[in-house]
Amino acid sequence: MKIILSKEIGFCFGVKNAVEIAQKALDINDELVYMLGPIIHNPQVIEMFQKKGVKIVSSIQEIPEGSTVITRAHGASHSILKEASQKRLRVVNTTCPYVKKVQEIAEYLYKNSYFIVVFGERKHPEITSILDIIHQNALVVEQISDLINIGHYKKIGLISQTTKNINDFKELCFYLLEKTEELRIFNTICKATTKRQVSALELSKKVDIMLVIGGKVSANTSRLVEICRNQGVKTFHIESKEELNYEWFHPQDSIGITSGASTPDWVIKEVIDKLKEWPY
Amino acid sequence: MKIILSKEIGFCFGVKNAVEIAQKALDINDELVYMLGPIIHNPQVIEMFQKKGVKIVSSIQEIPEGSTVITRAHGASHSILKEASQKRLRVVNTTCPYVKKVQEIAEYLYKNSYFIVVFGERKHPEITSILDIIHQNALVVEQISDLINIGHYKKIGLISQTTKNINDFKELCFYLLEKTEELRIFNTICKATTKRQVSALELSKKVDIMLVIGGKVSANTSRLVEICRNQGVKTFHIESKEELNYEWFHPQDSIGITSGASTPDWVIKEVIDKLKEWPY
Repeated sequence: MKIILSKEIGFCFGVKNAVEIAQKALDINDELVYMLGPIIHNPQVIEMFQKKGVKIVSSIQEIPEGSTVITRAHGASHSILKEASQKRLRVVNTTCPYVKKVQEIAEYLYKNSYFIVVFGERKHPEITSILDIIHQNALVVEQISDLINIGHYKKIGLISQTTKNINDFKELCFYLLEKTEELRIFNTICKATTKRQVSALELSKKVDIMLVIGGKVSANTSRLVEICRNQGVKTFHIESKEELNYEWFHPQDSIGITSGASTPDWVIKEVIDKLKEWPY
Repeated sequence: MKIILSKEIGFCFGVKNAVEIAQKALDINDELVYMLGPIIHNPQVIEMFQKKGVKIVSSIQEIPEGSTVITRAHGASHSILKEASQKRLRVVNTTCPYVKKVQEIAEYLYKNSYFIVVFGERKHPEITSILDIIHQNALVVEQISDLINIGHYKKIGLISQTTKNINDFKELCFYLLEKTEELRIFNTICKATTKRQVSALELSKKVDIMLVIGGKVSANTSRLVEICRNQGVKTFHIESKEELNYEWFHPQDSIGITSGASTPDWVIKEVIDKLKEWPY
């Protein structure tokens, strides 16, 4: 058995940044710290924070006045920040700088009367935070067919969830160009995401099996799985070594490994170590 | 022999507008009137103006101080208008309103520090007038391969010559999107041009032979020829009835006819009349 790691693996900049900010907040706080939804989409990292005493809640209402709350890397919406401020909470905002930029661009387009098209998943926290800023004034497109009934607009502004695939995004541009006189596209897909996807794709061409390690609800991890499967290689999506199955592999297999942007190094290492234990 | 006319044929709005403006200028002028280059790319129309006493020149220098000069529908550049004003010429500006809009957009992009990409023919008067306005600060792209060495820019503004093909334009967007953080596309392709191209394409699918009537140096006419040929139909490009060749046709042929945007109705009628004279 041969194991080959993707060139782009482990935490991305935004995740590393968020985890570090949250960590610092814990270091200086003796009181109970709250986290509004999972800071990133990785179960092991969330478990680590819970072990350190962080309490995960799903709404501001659950947090006592004056407490400290950590908001997620996917972005905090204006309305949540306002609610937190009204409750005099100390907010530790871990929003990824790239997501912050998309929020700013969306606001700019909104203020300049563009019809806004957002390429992304309607229920993903990154998208809900953007929609909140522009008062829901946008068409969220999950797939090209969502555009079928779109009318004609004088000017259209197009942005994307940071973890989408650049080629799918391009398809949208193609379609929208005939629906407007001005199409203003901000390529808000995170470059690290694109690089990771390209590396996974390249690797999947060379191996017998791809293992994608990362949260099952992580958008960027799911995209990696999709890319590898579309390439035609047998692909397994696991969150941890516990899910590894001996029967998936043949002794002569070469195995490519990649991970989502929110998968910690130690989880990847555990998977590799377990694979190496097997007497292939 | 069956003759089918394209739904979109004859003068477009911009050409009709230019010819009418020039005509009015002649009606109110007793003195010799000058024309700076051909007002439109159609030899019969130019001949008509020459018969009415218009003198065609290729530079402002050839025109005596204080005279009247008609500039072309493809656009007059700032430098030409300045030169004309210095010589106290009375300028009859026939620039097509759609071309005027491209000039304004180009100027806006220039003033807002966009790296400007212009899809068009380097030596076409429409393009030279645009380049003059933005002091040559643009990359003119005639075909996608002209983009191969383009670098990365913070923001790119993309515009097109009004008579280009929308599908080719889309290809450029596809390519440029990865070269910038912001791609601001103004779809400056004239809608009448696109409609004419679509009609010609539809017609060329139904007939045995396509006749495209229009000036040999007319960009929009050449594009129609290209579109019909790419569709696989036998296509002839003629300027007038004199070029018609009896041997091109078989008695059972159905013949589709389209024309460039600068081809007058009377030229089209002459071609049809001649075809009908033949004893097929």
